[in-house]
Amino acid sequence: MTTHKIEEIGEFGLIDLIKQDTIQNPGCVITGIGDDAAVVLPAPRQLQLLTTDMLVESVHFDLRTTTPWQLGYKAIAVNLSDIAAMGGTPRHVLVSLAINKQVSPDFVVNLYEGMKEICREFSVNIVGGDTVATPGGVVINVAAMGEVEPGNIVRRSGANPGEIVAVTGKLGNSGGGLDLLLAGDWEDHDFAWPLVTAHLTPRPQVKAGKLLGLAGASSLNDISDGLASEINEIAAASQVGIRLFAGQIPLSDELRAAAALFHKTPLDYALYGGEDYQLVFTMEKSKWRELQATDLGVAVTLIGEVTKPHTGVVLINETGEEQPLAARGYNHFR
Amino acid sequence: MTTHKIEEIGEFGLIDLIKQDTIQNPGCVITGIGDDAAVVLPAPRQLQLLTTDMLVESVHFDLRTTTPWQLGYKAIAVNLSDIAAMGGTPRHVLVSLAINKQVSPDFVVNLYEGMKEICREFSVNIVGGDTVATPGGVVINVAAMGEVEPGNIVRRSGANPGEIVAVTGKLGNSGGGLDLLLAGDWEDHDFAWPLVTAHLTPRPQVKAGKLLGLAGASSLNDISDGLASEINEIAAASQVGIRLFAGQIPLSDELRAAAALFHKTPLDYALYGGEDYQLVFTMEKSKWRELQATDLGVAVTLIGEVTKPHTGVVLINETGEEQPLAARGYNHFR
Repeated sequence: MTTHKIEEIGEFGLIDLIKQDTIQNPGCVITGIGDDAAVVLPAPRQLQLLTTDMLVESVHFDLRTTTPWQLGYKAIAVNLSDIAAMGGTPRHVLVSLAINKQVSPDFVVNLYEGMKEICREFSVNIVGGDTVATPGGVVINVAAMGEVEPGNIVRRSGANPGEIVAVTGKLGNSGGGLDLLLAGDWEDHDFAWPLVTAHLTPRPQVKAGKLLGLAGASSLNDISDGLASEINEIAAASQVGIRLFAGQIPLSDELRAAAALFHKTPLDYALYGGEDYQLVFTMEKSKWRELQATDLGVAVTLIGEVTKPHTGVVLINETGEEQPLAARGYNHFR
Repeated sequence: MTTHKIEEIGEFGLIDLIKQDTIQNPGCVITGIGDDAAVVLPAPRQLQLLTTDMLVESVHFDLRTTTPWQLGYKAIAVNLSDIAAMGGTPRHVLVSLAINKQVSPDFVVNLYEGMKEICREFSVNIVGGDTVATPGGVVINVAAMGEVEPGNIVRRSGANPGEIVAVTGKLGNSGGGLDLLLAGDWEDHDFAWPLVTAHLTPRPQVKAGKLLGLAGASSLNDISDGLASEINEIAAASQVGIRLFAGQIPLSDELRAAAALFHKTPLDYALYGGEDYQLVFTMEKSKWRELQATDLGVAVTLIGEVTKPHTGVVLINETGEEQPLAARGYNHFR
């Protein structure tokens, strides 16, 4: 790279730098980057899913603790997670980037390399975007489009009394990773890497979301704001009560080590830590038993049960005590 | 409104304030605001158009010269204009907003009122979004989805030698309006209002774009970065030369008055002013003659002709002199 600032190459120069390798699934794209709008071909008899997420420097990320590549990966990941949380398959993204004119074009190229890596992994096309100047910090907005068979869509509102509650993966790792990044000495701890990775480059549970839709999950959320917040959303939208068994919530050994370091409990990370991008879902018991034979690409763990309306969300600890679980979470206004 | 700051009501409180009247065209929406992703129903046998634009405070707008209502209107308008520039019909938008926690919720409500007004006008649904905190200025990102019949899509790249070049409306008004707003005393000038309005609340040429697609326009751009930039894009994408007749470029009397005030030429505003959101297109001469019988909802004016490749874009002044017209425009990196 011979230029040193974005303002020297301009928006069109930037587009030339990034438009390579943006189309991973050419069958459904007529026109990608380069006209007033992208033109895509929807699959017949599918519903479409539309979602968007904005990440703001010093609110959602810190360039001292993330590389541009990791940031690009995560900006796409959080949107694919929302598509997964509806039982859908992501197809296309639009990327908007506000960046200071003095930044090196390398920053943008590396950011896009991270985006292209996750797009390759999930066969998602980058079909357009907007790159603008800002006097402030970096802002990234991604809008994602996905598809879902009408019969496989899973909302927050379908949970029924008598069903099980389960989650994919381990919870709290991302929150533990964030605390390690903020402390600054994470490279000194041999348990840190999986936690830091969970925070910086979360892998959206696209395969699991789609298979849970096929398997008849009755409600589904991705865990972006902590389990406490997400489970309360399902309870409220479905108008049911939910009982969670604290001892069954899946926690990693690495998280236990990090929690000890920070004098916190691993359960608090799982309930309130946020940004795990695992899935929480409800399902009839018979379907849950059938699900055990399915390879979701990630472990699933039963953590609770759906009860009657007006019983609230309660957490039952290992000695059998119940306490209400409020939606207090990671994302109040963030 | 009894609360005074967004942080007091949180993101979910905000969603409750804005989610009324977001669906204007319910037939194509299954689920709007409120789940992980919106669910929409694509029209059969249509191609889909995807576009996005980001507006940054103090780069793209100044809260001293625009109201939140006007800003909301414009943030949607610029995206609908991109859909119009492909010959399409806008259907859905996703709105992301980064805003300081100390701002009043009224700001957001008024911004959304402006968005809802233009969405009502064009039957567009606000199906989702993201509202996040920022320590910096306001950032608004809109992603829009539209539809187009496969046969009616118009790209930048279809212009052919021998065709006419034409534009909708008058050009340069937005640039004149911007200079009036920056000067601060626009209310003293009786010619100012149409120019200021053209800048603050541009009306996207959705009907004209769709009818131009139906009428067989061979190339089409919306004029967001000034005519000089847009016509060079068409010439480059279509690999043709273009001759523009300076005396035929449509200019308003109000722009002439503003240009005199600022010691500029009205033609410079039209060529380089930007943000007019009119359309520039090319078309076979026979189709152009047929087009005169069509009500596009806006006047169209013939301003030039398409010539052979490698002849560049030239501007011919009223005494017959030719000069190359470079793409220097409003939007270098902005």
